[in-house]
Amino acid sequence: MLASLISKLVLSAKSPRVPVSTVSTMSTASAAISAAAPSLQPVFDKLFPKVDELQPQFIDVLKHAVEIPAVSGDETLRPQVVKKARYIASQLESLGFTDIQLKELGTQPPPVVDPTLQLPPVVLARYGSDPAKKTVLVYGHYDVQPASRDDGWDTEPFELVVDEQTQQLRGRGSTDDTGPLTGWLHVVRAHREAGIDLPVNLLTCFEGMEESGSLGLEQLIEREATGYFAGVDAVCISDNYWLGTRKPVLTYGLRGCNYYQVSVSGPKADLHSGVFGGIIAEPMVDLVQILAGLVDSQGRILIKGIDEMVAPVTEKERAIYEKIDFSRDELDEAAGSHTALYDRKEDILMHRWRYPSLSVHGVEGAFAGMGAKTVIPARVSGKFSIRTVPDMDSEKLTKLVVDHCNAAFAKLNSPNTVHTELIHDGAYWVSDPYNAQFSAATEATKVVYGVEPDLTREGGSIPITLAFEQLLKTSVLLLPMGRGDDGAHSVNEKLDISNFINGIKLMGAYLHFYAASPEN
Amino acid sequence: MLASLISKLVLSAKSPRVPVSTVSTMSTASAAISAAAPSLQPVFDKLFPKVDELQPQFIDVLKHAVEIPAVSGDETLRPQVVKKARYIASQLESLGFTDIQLKELGTQPPPVVDPTLQLPPVVLARYGSDPAKKTVLVYGHYDVQPASRDDGWDTEPFELVVDEQTQQLRGRGSTDDTGPLTGWLHVVRAHREAGIDLPVNLLTCFEGMEESGSLGLEQLIEREATGYFAGVDAVCISDNYWLGTRKPVLTYGLRGCNYYQVSVSGPKADLHSGVFGGIIAEPMVDLVQILAGLVDSQGRILIKGIDEMVAPVTEKERAIYEKIDFSRDELDEAAGSHTALYDRKEDILMHRWRYPSLSVHGVEGAFAGMGAKTVIPARVSGKFSIRTVPDMDSEKLTKLVVDHCNAAFAKLNSPNTVHTELIHDGAYWVSDPYNAQFSAATEATKVVYGVEPDLTREGGSIPITLAFEQLLKTSVLLLPMGRGDDGAHSVNEKLDISNFINGIKLMGAYLHFYAASPEN
Repeated sequence: MLASLISKLVLSAKSPRVPVSTVSTMSTASAAISAAAPSLQPVFDKLFPKVDELQPQFIDVLKHAVEIPAVSGDETLRPQVVKKARYIASQLESLGFTDIQLKELGTQPPPVVDPTLQLPPVVLARYGSDPAKKTVLVYGHYDVQPASRDDGWDTEPFELVVDEQTQQLRGRGSTDDTGPLTGWLHVVRAHREAGIDLPVNLLTCFEGMEESGSLGLEQLIEREATGYFAGVDAVCISDNYWLGTRKPVLTYGLRGCNYYQVSVSGPKADLHSGVFGGIIAEPMVDLVQILAGLVDSQGRILIKGIDEMVAPVTEKERAIYEKIDFSRDELDEAAGSHTALYDRKEDILMHRWRYPSLSVHGVEGAFAGMGAKTVIPARVSGKFSIRTVPDMDSEKLTKLVVDHCNAAFAKLNSPNTVHTELIHDGAYWVSDPYNAQFSAATEATKVVYGVEPDLTREGGSIPITLAFEQLLKTSVLLLPMGRGDDGAHSVNEKLDISNFINGIKLMGAYLHFYAASPEN
Repeated sequence: MLASLISKLVLSAKSPRVPVSTVSTMSTASAAISAAAPSLQPVFDKLFPKVDELQPQFIDVLKHAVEIPAVSGDETLRPQVVKKARYIASQLESLGFTDIQLKELGTQPPPVVDPTLQLPPVVLARYGSDPAKKTVLVYGHYDVQPASRDDGWDTEPFELVVDEQTQQLRGRGSTDDTGPLTGWLHVVRAHREAGIDLPVNLLTCFEGMEESGSLGLEQLIEREATGYFAGVDAVCISDNYWLGTRKPVLTYGLRGCNYYQVSVSGPKADLHSGVFGGIIAEPMVDLVQILAGLVDSQGRILIKGIDEMVAPVTEKERAIYEKIDFSRDELDEAAGSHTALYDRKEDILMHRWRYPSLSVHGVEGAFAGMGAKTVIPARVSGKFSIRTVPDMDSEKLTKLVVDHCNAAFAKLNSPNTVHTELIHDGAYWVSDPYNAQFSAATEATKVVYGVEPDLTREGGSIPITLAFEQLLKTSVLLLPMGRGDDGAHSVNEKLDISNFINGIKLMGAYLHFYAASPEN
């Protein structure tokens, strides 16, 4: 039943189905979940104090995990990545997880220094296998971004520092994603020590290559869809962040990305502008004309036919945006400038999340250095990408883009040649924010934080989200633990202790509400 | 008298004076020089056979010079550059030159690896100091471009190979500029061995830093204008090439170059296009709009006011172009493509030499690599240059460019900021191709090659030309020795033996005709 429901809700750039605007306001599941709150209160009254009580132990586990510099992007640190996988596996074992497997993904494809380099394993484990219970797959990644004291960290990045003053846990991986990943382990531990039965079967899928493109993961999901992952009812990913610093959110959408390259070729080799300037058609001159016709300075895409593909905004959707806690000031602060294209919160968020955008990234083949070089580049490639949203069809979009560039070039009447191509293509993802999982997470948020979560989307993409949804044919929930200012990928990465502890409670409560749902 | 005459003819981007179109067709000097031909014939009848006879010795000197890898751009080879200066000085001494000085130019300014690195010396020497004779300063450079067998040379670049089959001298510096430089020495030797009095006083100014920006030379010329170079009547530079491979040329003009950078700044740091695409004004989007408004694909400059500054083509000038031996095929071959903007020889050459052109070179600060990077660059600088010609005023041009870019940006209504600046400025140079020097060289060409030389200009610049003209207040003649296909700066650089030998005769004949002129 789940599969058929989801198939109606899921939208992908490759096979658009029912637009999100057709989703009903309140499902049966949603009502039932809401009604379950009073009966679950006694469970939470036992569970939450246990989580509070175990805070020192939870931090201790995180501390040990952070101390292992599991940088997936640094080949020389690959043994450390594997070491961290083993540390997590040992923790899972001590908590009573079964069928623990460190799934090998084979040799890392080029470019690599060591051609025999093995990809880090994916940590699979299960907790419970009661056919009467729903099965939830939780995803996290144990690898981290590089970090060095020299980058400007106030403390050693691979030591978890408990800052008593700010009540924050500082260290590489604290929020991205070791903190949230270990959160699931702590949920189990709190249940065990409080004597509460875990209401679902839990499956872990913890990868060690997320910061380096999740190499091999999609293939693993595909292989295990009818194997280790058979019977999964829902997937929960805790690897993004609140929009701001005050209000918890649930995330139900990601934009896709179609990345294009338009190349103009002329002379056989680069020429000297003194000798050839004025007598030869310059590829760079043609290229800037084409690039200038893609988007205007107000962010309006000038390629005809794209606007028509975008799902219209519904009243219900508008209501989501009106409720969200956000302001233009926050954008200005993030950008470090006052160069936003919109003033209103709703416009900003809609253009970040649910409208397409076109960015011009640069030019390959032209002079890119400092100072002056009098070159006429022989072949230049303009790079631009379009962030995609429902109901844009990737192939149709590419046809519009290529036709547009060809037509723009034809108008130039240039003797050069042009070639436009799609060089990368990642589909968008949008879920139903009122389905059983999201309703469960909404109720859990209300219980833990006392507020209704904001329903957010992300402008960027997390490709593995769509892979889980499509390959396992399940609903996927993005349930962030940390705040928007945690500094993932940056210096002094942190996780507020309150987010850590409340996040563990939220994960636990979500499992209980989801279990109480009559639907998957 | 010379000074006042020249001041009427000289044109520079900084101080335009009388446009070239006002120059008279036939000067008194020109007629007198032409009339001197019969009386000089007995001199040439002795001189030219001597040059032919000395061919093995001339090649031998060139061979020794080429064997010294005097690469001015390679700090580690600086001792070799100095060694070559000493070799030339020793040759000058053996020929009876006097007052030989290796003029030091001081420490090379940064960027350098060795902060104490000394610039190569300028070799000054004089042959004769008869106050009754005119004094001609001859310029050449003894440094060379880098070269390595690995670059694709058929033979060792720093060994002069006499190719009997092609009758060419192959080796780095053969044509640029060791061959022409030593040519002046051979002129003196042939006169001495033929028992002919040199008709002028000769001064040498041989530098060792031409391939690396002629550092320090302009300052030396300025210092020596009333010192070593006092009394110079004319300057002859042999450091360019025939237009093609068949017909000798004299070169009377060079375009200047104003290099600009237009920078658009937005956010404080580079941003992710997933998160910020569509909600922030992107500097790169503004920049391509500005760059697209500078020039069209037919090479027409779109900045208003520039066309009006360009000196109109006169009938006399048009006649020069009609006579020149050139075709579109030669341009196509040089460019390796069929992307020329003009078909007619006259249009191609006028747009290369006497019309301005605008080239877009590239963008600094944007993504310039291969593949896909989803960055919104925070600050991007577009690089473009305008080749300048008479009567364009550099300062006025810069004002037009800056105003144009500011106006284009204002139309975009963008919250970003723009800044346009001139980052390099080299003036154009145009001489009177019918003055005493050019008339002498024309007659010499007729005597040596049996044809009237084509009068050419160059699209690029040789900044030192203008420095000599302005600082010494003399006429400058560009008298090339090699052919257009010699491959200066490229692999298998060569000089045809016929060009070498005839070039030496041409240099000698030019001195005699110039000496015979009633004017300087």
